Amino acid sequence: MRSPGRSRTRTGADAIKHAARFRLAIEGIMPDIDGGRFVAKAQCGEPFPIEADVFCDGHDVIRAAVLWWASEDRALHEQQMAALGNDRWRATITFPDNASYAFTIIGWRDLFASWHMDTGKKIAAGQTVSLEAREGVDLLRAALAARPAPAPQDRIALRDLLGKIETTDSAGTLDLLMAGETLDLMHRAGPRTHLTRYERDIPVFVDRPRAGFSAWYELFPRSTGAGTEHGTFRTVIDRLPYVRDLGFDVLYFPPIHPIGRTNRKGRNNSLTPAPDDPGSPYAIGSTDGGHDAVHPDLGTLEDFDALVAAAHDHGLEIALDFAIQCSPDHPWIIEHPEWFDWRPDGTIKFAENPPKKYEDIVNVHFYRDAIPGLWLALREVVLFWIGHGVRIFRVDNPHTKPFPFWEWLIAEIRRTDPGVIFLAEAFTRPKVMKRLAKLGFNQSYSYFTWRDTKAGLTEYLTELTAGDARHYMRPNFFVNTPDINPYFLQSSGRPGFRIRLVLAATLGGNYGIYNGFEICEAAPVPGKEEYLDSEKYEIRDWDFDRAGHIKDDIRLINRLRADHPALQRFAALKFFNAFDDAILYYGKFDPGTGSYLLFHVLLDPHGPHDFAFEVPLWEFGLPDDAGIAVEDLLNGNRFVWQGKTHQLTLDPDDRPYAIWRLHPAGDQP
Amino acid sequence: MRSPGRSRTRTGADAIKHAARFRLAIEGIMPDIDGGRFVAKAQCGEPFPIEADVFCDGHDVIRAAVLWWASEDRALHEQQMAALGNDRWRATITFPDNASYAFTIIGWRDLFASWHMDTGKKIAAGQTVSLEAREGVDLLRAALAARPAPAPQDRIALRDLLGKIETTDSAGTLDLLMAGETLDLMHRAGPRTHLTRYERDIPVFVDRPRAGFSAWYELFPRSTGAGTEHGTFRTVIDRLPYVRDLGFDVLYFPPIHPIGRTNRKGRNNSLTPAPDDPGSPYAIGSTDGGHDAVHPDLGTLEDFDALVAAAHDHGLEIALDFAIQCSPDHPWIIEHPEWFDWRPDGTIKFAENPPKKYEDIVNVHFYRDAIPGLWLALREVVLFWIGHGVRIFRVDNPHTKPFPFWEWLIAEIRRTDPGVIFLAEAFTRPKVMKRLAKLGFNQSYSYFTWRDTKAGLTEYLTELTAGDARHYMRPNFFVNTPDINPYFLQSSGRPGFRIRLVLAATLGGNYGIYNGFEICEAAPVPGKEEYLDSEKYEIRDWDFDRAGHIKDDIRLINRLRADHPALQRFAALKFFNAFDDAILYYGKFDPGTGSYLLFHVLLDPHGPHDFAFEVPLWEFGLPDDAGIAVEDLLNGNRFVWQGKTHQLTLDPDDRPYAIWRLHPAGDQP
Repeated sequence: MRSPGRSRTRTGADAIKHAARFRLAIEGIMPDIDGGRFVAKAQCGEPFPIEADVFCDGHDVIRAAVLWWASEDRALHEQQMAALGNDRWRATITFPDNASYAFTIIGWRDLFASWHMDTGKKIAAGQTVSLEAREGVDLLRAALAARPAPAPQDRIALRDLLGKIETTDSAGTLDLLMAGETLDLMHRAGPRTHLTRYERDIPVFVDRPRAGFSAWYELFPRSTGAGTEHGTFRTVIDRLPYVRDLGFDVLYFPPIHPIGRTNRKGRNNSLTPAPDDPGSPYAIGSTDGGHDAVHPDLGTLEDFDALVAAAHDHGLEIALDFAIQCSPDHPWIIEHPEWFDWRPDGTIKFAENPPKKYEDIVNVHFYRDAIPGLWLALREVVLFWIGHGVRIFRVDNPHTKPFPFWEWLIAEIRRTDPGVIFLAEAFTRPKVMKRLAKLGFNQSYSYFTWRDTKAGLTEYLTELTAGDARHYMRPNFFVNTPDINPYFLQSSGRPGFRIRLVLAATLGGNYGIYNGFEICEAAPVPGKEEYLDSEKYEIRDWDFDRAGHIKDDIRLINRLRADHPALQRFAALKFFNAFDDAILYYGKFDPGTGSYLLFHVLLDPHGPHDFAFEVPLWEFGLPDDAGIAVEDLLNGNRFVWQGKTHQLTLDPDDRPYAIWRLHPAGDQP
Repeated sequence: MRSPGRSRTRTGADAIKHAARFRLAIEGIMPDIDGGRFVAKAQCGEPFPIEADVFCDGHDVIRAAVLWWASEDRALHEQQMAALGNDRWRATITFPDNASYAFTIIGWRDLFASWHMDTGKKIAAGQTVSLEAREGVDLLRAALAARPAPAPQDRIALRDLLGKIETTDSAGTLDLLMAGETLDLMHRAGPRTHLTRYERDIPVFVDRPRAGFSAWYELFPRSTGAGTEHGTFRTVIDRLPYVRDLGFDVLYFPPIHPIGRTNRKGRNNSLTPAPDDPGSPYAIGSTDGGHDAVHPDLGTLEDFDALVAAAHDHGLEIALDFAIQCSPDHPWIIEHPEWFDWRPDGTIKFAENPPKKYEDIVNVHFYRDAIPGLWLALREVVLFWIGHGVRIFRVDNPHTKPFPFWEWLIAEIRRTDPGVIFLAEAFTRPKVMKRLAKLGFNQSYSYFTWRDTKAGLTEYLTELTAGDARHYMRPNFFVNTPDINPYFLQSSGRPGFRIRLVLAATLGGNYGIYNGFEICEAAPVPGKEEYLDSEKYEIRDWDFDRAGHIKDDIRLINRLRADHPALQRFAALKFFNAFDDAILYYGKFDPGTGSYLLFHVLLDPHGPHDFAFEVPLWEFGLPDDAGIAVEDLLNGNRFVWQGKTHQLTLDPDDRPYAIWRLHPAGDQP
């Protein structure tokens, strides 16, 4: 009965029979996003822990299990849960496929186990249990007679057991009844008394592994040409070995569509472009086409297809930008004026954030006569690019488009291809960012970009890895973007770039850099968190070999990510004690090898720090004076740390981080 | 779309139109017990805060409101919510009646307010807004034309406004549009664009005040006779002035029914009763009747009715014990053998907790052939006593009876009389206690009885007053019961009784004592938390005037409870700093008078403590060196405390507690 109101719809014996069906309490399900309203996220082949409070009145032995199924075939799977104490139960499921699943919890009273427990206590207290023995045999007989019947082999075992009991004396009967095998048999085969099923099914979407573990590299295709010549998809192909050599696996482009002419922006976001300024790729659409066209200077769709194929050959996936906005020259404005806002004087409404105006952009409005036409058209855009081999979309500003649109779109696309990944570029208020993740976005931009203190990083990472958000939100830690030249990097010099790289790539399962980061580019528009000579408004001629680059660090860190499964598990994070506010010290455990990766990162780019830190011997159940084998993953040194507290120096001009692998005692690396 | 599975049931334009209906995000509702599965608790006339996260895509102005209704008439009431920041909204509802209610949340975009905000910014930046003015007038016209139409007075105001605009110039139009009254008018009368209603209704049960604020006194009616003569309902009437004079408002009796003869217990729970031993009143039922009969030695049902009436005249409510268990002589065993468990040898199964046996008790089993007969019979028992004027039931061991039974029973009884109060006597595991509260129990026994350290009390009270449980669980702080003679009191002497009294009565909205507490009775069964010569098994002849009683403290504290509304609000608790681990220091705020009650309680009954404490000047927005008027509520002294830190001595042999009332500066008491 969900409410006093509803309880009145059933009366008398009917109401009692209905209520009585749910004898066990099943509550506190984890994960469960907003009472089943949203879908929890899992990953193919990754263990997925499910917990619940399951209990009954009285003191009987109870059992609990997870029931789960794929939405497609609905064939039921069952996994027993283990009692953790305090009425909490847990099971770990490994969902096999990139698909939609659901689970629920069942619980029941195991009357034979209760009988076994009570009778054992009476025997221990020296009481007579002859009547109990008769009751025990009755429970075996009831199990054999129950419908649905036990499994064939259990039926045979029950019949054998009852046969033996027929031919033995009372002491022999009691021995047979109290045997551990009988308890196990009855656990499997006994009736599930007062079987109760949780009232809701919890939906789970199981992603392919790249949704949770990816390293992104962002570049503007038009900047890959020789000098400041306009690059093409073909020149991007030439850049693929470089990106792959650095160790990235996703190559992401800002919009590749035709760029509008009307109100085009010039260099450094000026309103007075030179005739040959290329304009912002976010001013999408011209007489050359809209969201399903490519900029003619980049090449043809065939060139794009060739690039996708070449990227695939290099182990790289192409990610496109999905930016739902139009230049004033976009074909939709003529074809579908009903998707746009018009003013009383007959002009079109430009994007604005009063008193600021964005004259090169007009926005669609999604409602009124844009339903369903615009929604279907946008679905077609995504399907179009999926048709060209793209399965990752970075979505521009999703928080300025309606939430229901995203929930609908992502569900629709998943029906076509459950492996399509959407990354939400929503740098906005915390609850809005979380809502977008709940709606289905597989990855989310995050506040990591601005978290550069020990307290700030610890608090934010704890929220993301230990709070409810871990069940639905997968952050992607970008160190910079074409729009964000973080203040920290503007003043940190090369050490700051190495610091941010290590933090992003080892704290985050997903992380990304925008090109220029590897050569420590940080020239700002003075006083602003923006890049000078922003690539959004001009073609840049990068020298990726210039002095002071950090490409060796990037290669090293990306290799460690690939080699160590612990780094592929975002939520497996623990912070440890380093006695210095400029040292972030954390670990990631790998259950496969039983080893810990430990990271010391100096957050201060300006000078060396000498500090004490604790080796987490307790994580291996070791005393404070134990020794433990340790491997320095940066240079291969191997030694034994003896005792809990040690001393380390990190120098930003040498290397502002250290990475270790701890092995349980006795297991020398 | 609740799950990927369900989303497939709608396709194409239909799915889009459906999804688009819920443009705003509404989530994080507080209170909301397990996703609406259980009913939140409120109290008549008490402010009930409701919060939610409400937000939309984009940057428009939004509005939110609570919709609420009584389940009986379903007439809708609406209350605007206020924005608290971080997308959180709050409204406070005061439900008028002791009845079932429900609420939900709505949110919408206020387009005129967005226009007003944006246009204001443009005006401030010196931009031309003539086109904006035309758009503003269009919004007024749309509001007037909207269906459903605005309220008549708003329609008139809109028409007047548009009339004025017709006859003024552009500057005048803008002034009219930007006026605060226009913003207010359009907030009320403008269309609710993209109105979104939260997908569930949250049920609330509104109790009468006594459910949240009551002082219980427990006695055995049979012990109210002269000497050790068997007392009667008539001798209980003679005791009423005593109980009322102490300041209690609920008088609670253990079971008053006929007591079985078979396997009757003797004094001190012995198995060898003397012929005139009265037996445990929890062995319910004999040839004289069962749960709807009274023990013949206590009198007749007419005597009981007279007692209920006399209690009412003394401002006392009678609470009965509802103990669902039977002596082997209970009439139900003959009349309804199908409600009991029988063994293979044809004997009835006694209560047991192996290896312990309780031969004077047999339990009903609630399932199989007990459905629906037993459930209906138990409902009849409760209704029978309601028919005799009883509206409070203390339920014995509810955790050993099925959860669904309680949920069904309490809902059923509420249909007859929403003012009936059930107190759950479940001293068991934490989640079981909470589940019973969720199922509908109005009050709950708690772990308070065993919490006697500063850390233990602070942690437990914080959980109860600040955790989720505050929305559904109302503890009743019993200092002792016939079954529990707490170790603390066994060794504390008189100071310990005064300490526990003050803690229970000022921390708890509901609290209770079992008689003997007021004369510091603590003689134990050696080594056990039980009373020697327990009244459960014999008639006691109490001397309530014996030396060392604490009746003056009880009168004083109960009077303070009645006089100060702050003490009637359980959740209004804050702990403050006293620099001594034996001093519990806390406050309760009364929003009516703007004053704080402060309590210092010495938890150590063995010697005086001198300690510093902080006056919570910050609660009044005062600086650390401010003065504040204070009244000593124990002796009427009034003075001004200057500054934040003061010093106090509490002596257990003098008085182990102090109670103050703080008044905001300038408001001398």
